[in-house]
Amino acid sequence: MRKTDGDLMCPHRAVLEHVTSRWGTLVLIVLLERSYRFSELRREISKVSQVSEKMLAQTLQTLERDGMVNRDAKPVIPPRVDYALTDLGREGAEQVRDLSLWTERRMAAVQKARQEYDAAKA
Amino acid sequence: MRKTDGDLMCPHRAVLEHVTSRWGTLVLIVLLERSYRFSELRREISKVSQVSEKMLAQTLQTLERDGMVNRDAKPVIPPRVDYALTDLGREGAEQVRDLSLWTERRMAAVQKARQEYDAAKA
Repeated sequence: MRKTDGDLMCPHRAVLEHVTSRWGTLVLIVLLERSYRFSELRREISKVSQVSEKMLAQTLQTLERDGMVNRDAKPVIPPRVDYALTDLGREGAEQVRDLSLWTERRMAAVQKARQEYDAAKA
Repeated sequence: MRKTDGDLMCPHRAVLEHVTSRWGTLVLIVLLERSYRFSELRREISKVSQVSEKMLAQTLQTLERDGMVNRDAKPVIPPRVDYALTDLGREGAEQVRDLSLWTERRMAAVQKARQEYDAAKA
């Protein structure tokens, strides 16, 4: 996810890609509800789409670096790390969730368009 | 962009990926302004980020199939093809543009977070 950081014309495009990436979207939407521990978060996201530890860790790191997610490592035994949205992350997450809900709501129109498109091509 | 159409759990996630993809985003935002011919659109988008003919054609096809973009091939010589947003596409494009404007507006906060993150890691 870091490869677009070098896009000097529009540095904000990298941020847009981070928050709308496959896992970025899911992380933000799940964290809107409450803070999560890593393994809990992985389980929750995997209900929608199986995510590897590595991909989830990378996604969280990218969002943490962008200031969207706060990583709170508590000095306890066993170690406990909580992930939560920052205020900035909440702003982004709400918009991403709304966009996601919109695609869900408009899915019938999309399916109809696809059928017509495919029929015209056949 | 079609590889996620098979995500049966959440078919709307594919649509979300189409409208937030690198080129999907740019196509929607540019078409919010007015309809464009293919070559015009390619020139406009390439001001932000160089796009190949093939990638742009695929992006337009995906958005057309999803019912977001209307392709109007006029029976004239030389051939003339115009691309415009449908009502559905306009709904999506406005949200994608707002999200893009938000990342632009919040870029200073993101840059600050990145500096702090990188300093803590160094």
